[in-house]
Amino acid sequence: MSGGRVGSTSRRPRGWPTPADFPPPPGAADRRRWAEADRAARPARIERLRARFETAGMDAYLGLRPEDARYLTGVRLGFGEEKVAGHSGRFLVTGETVVVFADSRYVAQFRTEAPEARLEILGGDLAGRWRELTDGLGLRRLAVDPSCPIGLWRRLTEAAPAVELVPAPDWLDEDRARKEPTEIERIAGAAAVADRALAALLPEIAAGRTERELALALEWAIRTGGADGLAFEIACLSGPQAALPHGSPRDVPIEAGTVLLVDFGAEVDGYRSDMTRTLFVGEPPAVALERYDLVARAQRAALDRLEASFEEPVPPSGRTVDAAARAVIEAAGLGERFGHGTGHGIGLATHELPRLSRLASEAPLPSPTVFSVEPGVYVEGELGIRIEDLVHYDHAARRLVPLTGFPREPLVVGRADR
Amino acid sequence: MSGGRVGSTSRRPRGWPTPADFPPPPGAADRRRWAEADRAARPARIERLRARFETAGMDAYLGLRPEDARYLTGVRLGFGEEKVAGHSGRFLVTGETVVVFADSRYVAQFRTEAPEARLEILGGDLAGRWRELTDGLGLRRLAVDPSCPIGLWRRLTEAAPAVELVPAPDWLDEDRARKEPTEIERIAGAAAVADRALAALLPEIAAGRTERELALALEWAIRTGGADGLAFEIACLSGPQAALPHGSPRDVPIEAGTVLLVDFGAEVDGYRSDMTRTLFVGEPPAVALERYDLVARAQRAALDRLEASFEEPVPPSGRTVDAAARAVIEAAGLGERFGHGTGHGIGLATHELPRLSRLASEAPLPSPTVFSVEPGVYVEGELGIRIEDLVHYDHAARRLVPLTGFPREPLVVGRADR
Repeated sequence: MSGGRVGSTSRRPRGWPTPADFPPPPGAADRRRWAEADRAARPARIERLRARFETAGMDAYLGLRPEDARYLTGVRLGFGEEKVAGHSGRFLVTGETVVVFADSRYVAQFRTEAPEARLEILGGDLAGRWRELTDGLGLRRLAVDPSCPIGLWRRLTEAAPAVELVPAPDWLDEDRARKEPTEIERIAGAAAVADRALAALLPEIAAGRTERELALALEWAIRTGGADGLAFEIACLSGPQAALPHGSPRDVPIEAGTVLLVDFGAEVDGYRSDMTRTLFVGEPPAVALERYDLVARAQRAALDRLEASFEEPVPPSGRTVDAAARAVIEAAGLGERFGHGTGHGIGLATHELPRLSRLASEAPLPSPTVFSVEPGVYVEGELGIRIEDLVHYDHAARRLVPLTGFPREPLVVGRADR
Repeated sequence: MSGGRVGSTSRRPRGWPTPADFPPPPGAADRRRWAEADRAARPARIERLRARFETAGMDAYLGLRPEDARYLTGVRLGFGEEKVAGHSGRFLVTGETVVVFADSRYVAQFRTEAPEARLEILGGDLAGRWRELTDGLGLRRLAVDPSCPIGLWRRLTEAAPAVELVPAPDWLDEDRARKEPTEIERIAGAAAVADRALAALLPEIAAGRTERELALALEWAIRTGGADGLAFEIACLSGPQAALPHGSPRDVPIEAGTVLLVDFGAEVDGYRSDMTRTLFVGEPPAVALERYDLVARAQRAALDRLEASFEEPVPPSGRTVDAAARAVIEAAGLGERFGHGTGHGIGLATHELPRLSRLASEAPLPSPTVFSVEPGVYVEGELGIRIEDLVHYDHAARRLVPLTGFPREPLVVGRADR
């Protein structure tokens, strides 16, 4: 580490981004304001869900995902905590009531976080109380989160055979894809924490450091730089490894003259960011720079297509935007090397609607919304290049605002002569 | 921080545990040995699953959980990565073949990690290929992981109506509950990393520090101390907050004369540890020490019950061991304040079989196995106390080996006079 702490400017060449180039991390006043905005928004979010019940012939919605529970009720589970939380955080929205389930471990916490909801304390399986609960609430037909495990589905059906369960449509995914102003603010806050962290890391990157060391230093900069956590495990992949978009950082030294692909994000007040930069460690071979330019042009094509939509009556589909980026890479004969989609929505979950891909809906994009634009080219055994930015897209306001502030230009780090 | 790095011994009173008291972190040779042991063990693990097919009338097993995929095939997804991995890492075990699904992002990675499996590359939903796949493999009746989302279940049923899907019994949970020697070694390794990290943190704990600062310092000590990651988000809760067994660390200063409950674990080569210590920050009130003693005696009662089982022909049930701990707390009139179970198995998942609780099976515990023993007492608005250790239990070998090495005695930290 050459004795310098992460973020020291001693070895930072002129022109490199610095942490101070990006907005400062959110403070306590921001968090209070966000909590207040959520509290104020929850009744309308719940009514939006309820408004579907009559047409769909449903009495209620049984929700299972922590991000939906946070959105509608305010309860907070940590990342992955649902795996050990039992039924805690699962919830039921009827025409009149919002019920949140909790086992003894979560009662005090949920009482504080979701004061408007009715807390239902479970000693064991939800199925054990299901008959009594649905009878008490007069429920006969329920929309159930389609992520419901088949095991639970069958136990509920057995417990109350007269209550019909129906896999719910994407209602909450659709609602959460349209972002409120303070939701966008939090995603932008998470994006800025990530920008600052990568800027702080730049002087530390050099051939000989390991992927794992750099991933850990980046994580530390995120965790101490205003984030509540990571949005997901950091991918930090060098050389041919960068062709594996989802490998884990390794304990091997980075070689000079290779790429370093870093895909990471921060979480701020439950909202997530996601960005990728592909850096060059030492002088890059010409072919790597050519590929970088190709990916950058593909990304630009997607952004141009979005900007062009402001002259059109409705937003383009996620499939259309994907096609705009993909056409650039296909024209270079590398279409086969771009296996994933062009982007995904982000918010309380790292991947949510809208999708921007060959398989995405042909319906217009939601608006206002936030999503990633992240074309890539991967040549197995050689290298991988991806550039990923978050944008806030608002068709009615004719705005396409980048939330990722880090420069997109190719950046050579760890030059031997520094 | 008084200028000292975490782990400095300058402010460490005599008698406190130090990082050097615990086994050193695993090295590269350990990891190579473990990889080899897994490769050697996979055929038997797969055969153990297949051995159930005939009696159950099944042609195959469709697996969805990353921990099962790792166990049977070797593929590795990061914590929570299944949320963004699509069908990648899901797998099918037939009588003759093991198939792992991957989208383009995972092909290169899985080819390396699961060389024995047949890789099936998916461009979209598994349901789109289901008819062709099941026809090709001659499958008519499949056991499906009961965590299968009802949405996917219905799409698969529609795609191939002639193929009967049946929610699978707990086969893999049962198999994974019985631990191989190198599995226990890795859990012990993760437990030692956690022990060392807490020992390193002790001198940093004092009134005025925030829960969040200490949680972050502990995480750093784990991440830089030999772990591949955390087993789960750290709980670091002081005073009345400690009565919330699952709240997040807060940005508020810890007060003198309160408890600090720290529940955390490390991950080493996919295997997890889990431990809780309730420390006293400054002189504790007498009632807190009494409660601590009660919880320690409850834990001792569970361990005694396990040791007594070596004189019996079969292991006790998880319900029996829970009852032994619970009886101690009930005798003190605090049964209502011990809302959760006494323990849970641990391995590739933080919570797995066996369960030790009032609702646990009455069947004998598996053996050899690893689980937590973690009674607690929580008084809302006042304090919470929990002591959690991992133990390796082997009935045939008559061994009960503590994997958590950190002392269980009450520990007063951050005394004003130091």
